[in-house]
Amino acid sequence: MERQPEFAHRMSSKTIKIVDGAGNPVAGTEVTIRHTNHKFLFGCGIFDAIQVANKNVPADRLAFLEEKLDLFLDVFNSATLPFYWARFEPEQGKPLTQELKAAARWLKDRNVTVKGHPLVWHTLTAPWLLDLSNEEILKAQLARIERDVTDFEGLIDTWDVINEVVIMPIFDKYDNGITRISKELGRVGIIKEMFAKTRQCNPGATLLLNDFNTSINYEILIDGCLNAGVPIDAIGIQSHQHQGYWGREKLEEVLERFSHFGLPIHFTENTLTSGHIMPPEIDDLNDYQIPEWPSTPEFEERQAREVEEMYTILFKNPRVEAITTWNFSDEGAWLGAPAGLVRKDNTPKPSYEVLKKRIKGDWSTNVTGRTDEDGIITFEGFLGDYDLICGEKKVSFTVEKDAELERLVLLAEGM
Amino acid sequence: MERQPEFAHRMSSKTIKIVDGAGNPVAGTEVTIRHTNHKFLFGCGIFDAIQVANKNVPADRLAFLEEKLDLFLDVFNSATLPFYWARFEPEQGKPLTQELKAAARWLKDRNVTVKGHPLVWHTLTAPWLLDLSNEEILKAQLARIERDVTDFEGLIDTWDVINEVVIMPIFDKYDNGITRISKELGRVGIIKEMFAKTRQCNPGATLLLNDFNTSINYEILIDGCLNAGVPIDAIGIQSHQHQGYWGREKLEEVLERFSHFGLPIHFTENTLTSGHIMPPEIDDLNDYQIPEWPSTPEFEERQAREVEEMYTILFKNPRVEAITTWNFSDEGAWLGAPAGLVRKDNTPKPSYEVLKKRIKGDWSTNVTGRTDEDGIITFEGFLGDYDLICGEKKVSFTVEKDAELERLVLLAEGM
Repeated sequence: MERQPEFAHRMSSKTIKIVDGAGNPVAGTEVTIRHTNHKFLFGCGIFDAIQVANKNVPADRLAFLEEKLDLFLDVFNSATLPFYWARFEPEQGKPLTQELKAAARWLKDRNVTVKGHPLVWHTLTAPWLLDLSNEEILKAQLARIERDVTDFEGLIDTWDVINEVVIMPIFDKYDNGITRISKELGRVGIIKEMFAKTRQCNPGATLLLNDFNTSINYEILIDGCLNAGVPIDAIGIQSHQHQGYWGREKLEEVLERFSHFGLPIHFTENTLTSGHIMPPEIDDLNDYQIPEWPSTPEFEERQAREVEEMYTILFKNPRVEAITTWNFSDEGAWLGAPAGLVRKDNTPKPSYEVLKKRIKGDWSTNVTGRTDEDGIITFEGFLGDYDLICGEKKVSFTVEKDAELERLVLLAEGM
Repeated sequence: MERQPEFAHRMSSKTIKIVDGAGNPVAGTEVTIRHTNHKFLFGCGIFDAIQVANKNVPADRLAFLEEKLDLFLDVFNSATLPFYWARFEPEQGKPLTQELKAAARWLKDRNVTVKGHPLVWHTLTAPWLLDLSNEEILKAQLARIERDVTDFEGLIDTWDVINEVVIMPIFDKYDNGITRISKELGRVGIIKEMFAKTRQCNPGATLLLNDFNTSINYEILIDGCLNAGVPIDAIGIQSHQHQGYWGREKLEEVLERFSHFGLPIHFTENTLTSGHIMPPEIDDLNDYQIPEWPSTPEFEERQAREVEEMYTILFKNPRVEAITTWNFSDEGAWLGAPAGLVRKDNTPKPSYEVLKKRIKGDWSTNVTGRTDEDGIITFEGFLGDYDLICGEKKVSFTVEKDAELERLVLLAEGM
C-alpha cells in the first residue's frame, strides 16, 4: 500500500504473531487483512432507521427504505438519530422510547455508532413546556435527560447534549420553554447543568456541545465552559452550506480557531447541496421556502468536488474525529434542499461514489502478505477494526496508535 | 427639596438626633445639611494629577494645571490614573511608583476615589516583554500586578484588572507580549489568572473587567468568567462615542443586556465630543488621524445635551455605580478629539456646566431645617457624605440605604 504521510495520524504500524489453536506459529503462510471498520466516525443523519427497525410502514415503502439503508451501511459507520423533544414526546409522559431503541439497536447490530441529537434545544422542544413555570421547565428538562440517557445507555453513548446555545437566550422567533430558562440560567449556566446531568446518567458517554455559530462567540462560550469545568468531550460544529461551500480557507480557519481547546472536533451536521445556491441575503436558512429545489447533473458534479475536498481537509486534520453528512438522501432533506448523497429515488449521486471511494478505498487498508518463520506479519493501516483471513479461518483485531505486538490465535471460522 | 422618584435608589431618608457635648438634645435649632460627597462615582481620567502632585513642570504650567484640577475637583469625586505598562515601567525595574503614588495621594487627600487603569492590556504593554518567553512574560505580568497592587493599597483600591480581552488574543496590529500569552491561556484563562493575583494582593479592592466591545461577545465572556469563579466586582463598559452618541435606545439596550449578571456596571471611559463626528466607516478609532479637530459652539451645545441625557439615563439605572468621562480637557485628549468638558485653555464648555448643575445641584442635597424638641431632624438625601452645620459647629455623617436613627454629637468646629 502506498504511504500517505498526510494521514499518518490516522494510521499505525501493526505487528501480529499468528499462532494456531495449539500455540504453534502459522509460519510462511499467506494471509489477507481487511479493514472492517474505521476508528474515525463517518456518519449521516439517518432517521429512516426508525421505520426500518420498527417495520411500521407498508412493505413497498419498507423495501425502499431498506435499500436506502443498505447504501448507507456500505459506506458509513456512524449515525445520528433524532431526539427532538417535540417529536420524541409530543404528549408529556408518552415518549417514543421503544421506537428509538429499536432503531438504535438495529444500527448497533450493524456496527454503527449511534449519536442522539439533541437533548436540549430551543427549537422543536416540547410545546407543553410553555404551560410550566421556569422552575418546572428546568425540572422537566433534567428529568428528560435522566430518563433518555439512562434508557439508551449502551445503545447510544454519544449525545449532542445542548444545541445552539449562542442564540438560545436571544432567540426571538417564538416563545419556548428552553429560551425562557436559558435567559435565567445564562448560557454557561444552562450548559453546565445539562452536561452535569448527562454525565451523571452516563459517565462513559461522549458529550458534545453543538452550534452553527462558528464565530468568536462560540469560541468564547467554549472557553468559558471549559474554565467553568463543563465536561465537554468534543466540540460540535454545524456546517450547513446551503449558501455555498465554505472553501478551503474558511474551513482551515475554523479548524485552526477551534483547535486551540485541545478537544476533538466533530463536524456534526454537514450540508453541501447538489442544487443552486441559496441567496446570501437569507439570514436564517429556515426563511428560504421554495416549491422545488432540484438536483442537477452540473451541481451534482460540484457537490462531489466539494464533498471530496472538504472530507479530505477534515480527515487530514488530527483534531477532527467525526464528520456527519446531515441528510443521506434528498428525500425529506431539511429545507427541501438536494442535500443528500443519494437522490430521492435512492440512486447514488457522484458525491456518494466519491465518498465511498475515499472511505472504503483510499482511506481503508486491505493487504495480502505472508507471515515469516515465526508467524509474524507487520503492516501499516488506518486505525480501526480488522479481520485477518487465512484460508477458511478468520480472526478479528484492532489497529490502534502505538500498539504492542499482538498475538492472535487463528481458529476455524465460526469456532 | 423636590421628590425625585426616578432616583429613589440613589437616596435614603435619614433621621438624626443631635446632642451637645454634655449629651443634651440640641432642640428647636436651625441646622444646615450639606452634601459633601456622592456615594456614586462621578469620575474623569485625570492624568495631569501626576504633574501637579509632583510639581515637576515649570511654574506657569503648574499654575495652569492646578487651575484645571480645581475645575475637576469642583464637580468630580473619582479619578482614573494611568498605569500603562509601557509608560509606567519603560525600562524594566524602574517603575514610576513614586510619581504615581504622589498623584494618588494628592487625589485621595482631596476626597477623590482613585482607580488604576489598567494592570493588563495588550496595547501600551511593556515593549521589553517581546524579548521574553511566554512563561517569562506571564511571570513578569503577575509580578507587576503583585508589586503595583501592593504598593498602592490604601491609595488605589479600584483596578481595571484587564482591558479589552475580547480582542486580545486576535489583536493583529503588532506583536506584543500580552497577546502572546492570551493566545496560550485563552481569554477566560488569562482573566482568571490576573484576577486571582490582584485579589490576592488586595483582597478588599474593587476589581473590574473592562472592554469597548459591548456585543454578545463580551456578554458571553463575562458569563464564562463568572461561571469559572472569577471574582469580578464590576463590569467596565467603555463608551468612546467619537462616531456619534449611542442614543437612548442603544444605551438602554446595553444596560439591559449587562444587567443580567447582577453586578454593578461602571461606565469607565466615556467620550462625547464637541466636534464633528468621526466617519462611521472607521473601524478602529485609532486609524482616524487628522491635523485639527476643533471644538465649535454648535457642537458644544450638542455635547452638553448628549452628556446630560446620557448621565441622566445612567444615574437613573440602579446597576450603574460609576461614570468616568475619559478626557476632562481637550488638551491632550485621545485622538486629538475635542472630547473634554473643558477646552484647551481650561474654559468650561456647556457640558461642564450642565454636569456641575446636575452633580452638585439637582442630584445633591442641601437643606436647612429645625430640630424638634428632642433634637431630632429627618430629611431625604442622595447617598454619600454630609456635613451638618449649626452656628459655629459642624459634624459629619453619611447617608446610606436603610440606615437607623443616628446620634450625632455637635461640638465646636475644629474640636
